Amino acid sequence: MGSMNYDDLALEQHKAHKGKITTKLRDESPLTREKLSTYYTPGVAAVSKAIADDPSLLPVYTWTNNLVAVISDGSAVLGLGNIGPRGSMPVMEGKALLFKQFADIDSVPITLDVHTPDEIVTTVKAIASSFGAINLEDIAAPQCFEIEERLKAELDIPVFHDDQHGTAVVVLAGLINSMKVTGKQLADCKIVIIGAGAAGTAITKLLHKYGVGSIVAVDSKGIVGASRTDLNAEKTALLEFVDQSASGQLEDALDGADIFIGVSKPDLLTQDLVKKMNTAPIIFALSNPHPEIMPNDAKAAGAAVVATGRSDFPNQVNNALAFPGIFRGALNNKVRMITDEHKIAAAETIASLVETPNADEVIPSVFDDRLVPAIARVIT
Amino acid sequence: MGSMNYDDLALEQHKAHKGKITTKLRDESPLTREKLSTYYTPGVAAVSKAIADDPSLLPVYTWTNNLVAVISDGSAVLGLGNIGPRGSMPVMEGKALLFKQFADIDSVPITLDVHTPDEIVTTVKAIASSFGAINLEDIAAPQCFEIEERLKAELDIPVFHDDQHGTAVVVLAGLINSMKVTGKQLADCKIVIIGAGAAGTAITKLLHKYGVGSIVAVDSKGIVGASRTDLNAEKTALLEFVDQSASGQLEDALDGADIFIGVSKPDLLTQDLVKKMNTAPIIFALSNPHPEIMPNDAKAAGAAVVATGRSDFPNQVNNALAFPGIFRGALNNKVRMITDEHKIAAAETIASLVETPNADEVIPSVFDDRLVPAIARVIT
Repeated sequence: MGSMNYDDLALEQHKAHKGKITTKLRDESPLTREKLSTYYTPGVAAVSKAIADDPSLLPVYTWTNNLVAVISDGSAVLGLGNIGPRGSMPVMEGKALLFKQFADIDSVPITLDVHTPDEIVTTVKAIASSFGAINLEDIAAPQCFEIEERLKAELDIPVFHDDQHGTAVVVLAGLINSMKVTGKQLADCKIVIIGAGAAGTAITKLLHKYGVGSIVAVDSKGIVGASRTDLNAEKTALLEFVDQSASGQLEDALDGADIFIGVSKPDLLTQDLVKKMNTAPIIFALSNPHPEIMPNDAKAAGAAVVATGRSDFPNQVNNALAFPGIFRGALNNKVRMITDEHKIAAAETIASLVETPNADEVIPSVFDDRLVPAIARVIT
Repeated sequence: MGSMNYDDLALEQHKAHKGKITTKLRDESPLTREKLSTYYTPGVAAVSKAIADDPSLLPVYTWTNNLVAVISDGSAVLGLGNIGPRGSMPVMEGKALLFKQFADIDSVPITLDVHTPDEIVTTVKAIASSFGAINLEDIAAPQCFEIEERLKAELDIPVFHDDQHGTAVVVLAGLINSMKVTGKQLADCKIVIIGAGAAGTAITKLLHKYGVGSIVAVDSKGIVGASRTDLNAEKTALLEFVDQSASGQLEDALDGADIFIGVSKPDLLTQDLVKKMNTAPIIFALSNPHPEIMPNDAKAAGAAVVATGRSDFPNQVNNALAFPGIFRGALNNKVRMITDEHKIAAAETIASLVETPNADEVIPSVFDDRLVPAIARVIT
């Protein structure tokens, strides 16, 4: 998979630069004694007093207007699993790098050494006044659902769990363009989603909200349906958004399906299974770095469109397509909560940036300069 | 006091620049797709795994090696009192600016919306893995003492409450040079410290540790001595460091004193009181912005050396003389706890940078470039 080269290079580059982000002063003119007297004592007291009197002035006078905390407890980091807060720091600092590079947003990685929903909610609430928005990252399901819901309800700044919603937005964008390639209609499509964790759940909910034919969810035990007796609270709640009457295994789910969305495990989708799907099937094999089926194998089995999480194949489903613009818009437009309508608007915007969708281009490049401003405009 | 001009200018400059600090990428070469693959997925996984396997590598591969959190609950901000976390943010962001400007240290202001020692300790411990060191700031006494002590004991990174120790270090530096000006010896001096809050307590303890003749502490009710029946736990603990047998009011304390250190209230020291002191009295009137006695009045009453907290008079006792170098040294030299010995070494270093101490120069300028490297060398 060629990742050994990246491993060595990554270790080397992180060490050479001593990390990825740094701070600098906004006012780049020389720091004179007079300027110290305005940015610090005695002048700063007037600024503090103004904010104490009217807390809505916080973003007017401080860097919080452009500041996102990237917060993780390190419980579900990439494919590495629960590696703890310190192990998660390089990923969170990497996210801060992406925020800066793609959306000119200041971002601070915060790693948490607590893990229960109560502890995480309490900690994030205690520090939330330091930031303009909160990006939750790599927190394990099912805890991530309760944590995000409670923080959204209790804080007056945007809270967005990117592993859930960023992925869902980009998948929806890719599906919108896949319809143009295949001539299908999402409202008629049968969709199979395998992997009922953070991303799978959010994709299911967002596609349901957008309006699709039917959704069959599959977890490691089989189809998530009403006949299952082993569902936890979160998966029971998921029944509302899927075809509850479905039962069986992945092969049953795929029978006549138009769309496969995998956020699960490598090599789980065989060519034989693809052949059980409807004509011109659409395959989003997002297990990363090794997908549920390799793109060439999927195409050979008849897939009309294939997307993966990898940058070395066409149609990369990459959260970096969505979150920079979504947060840029939330900060610019003082949005206090990111809603399903915002996510759908972001997906439609991302899709619209591909002028002529075709099998190898249903999703734009993350390096497309139009992405962030276009998405930011619709997050209002 | 001319601070109205600074007020308006401060509000204007904070608004124009939208705060004081921002982030940028350490690696300033173009962010190519390959570089993304090392700083983020898939390459970053190797870095995360390395740290998860050996947490001591955290500062090797992430920005934590140069990162200080400036943490406050906004309960004792400048002279403004308990203005809450949001109101405190401009001061904490100002501190982050000072860290960057004076010591090239990355710093993130964290404002806490919790206020009991238990809640603050729990919150700071939960986020501590995000940082290389912690600067506690503007947390009210007596809570600040318990909070700092517990965090020092429970965390493996340096924790330093600058309102206490930064002030104490600079006061000691100024006194060391005041001895050279007056020919007195600290070991023989009677010192009166008025204000038994965070700074007064820390000054008392550090001077006691350094070795002085005697210390009389005074609070709003009078001399803090064994005959007092109204002392709280922290002031009772202070008895160990002061002349316990002393009693009475400020005027009694000052009788024959060599040194007055005020961290209390404007205009509290009259010329008549100065005249009760020993010959060639040394007056550190640190109430800010309006001192316990104005320098000209103190001099007219016979003061040999006068220091204040203000930049528009000679001998400014400014924490920025000490904390940038202390943290620079702690980070450079991987110091896990800042001790009394470190503080004394820092004070001696600051004092040594004034080649020829005289009444108008017992303390160097905060703009002296030698400060940070010289102090950092002795924090080992």
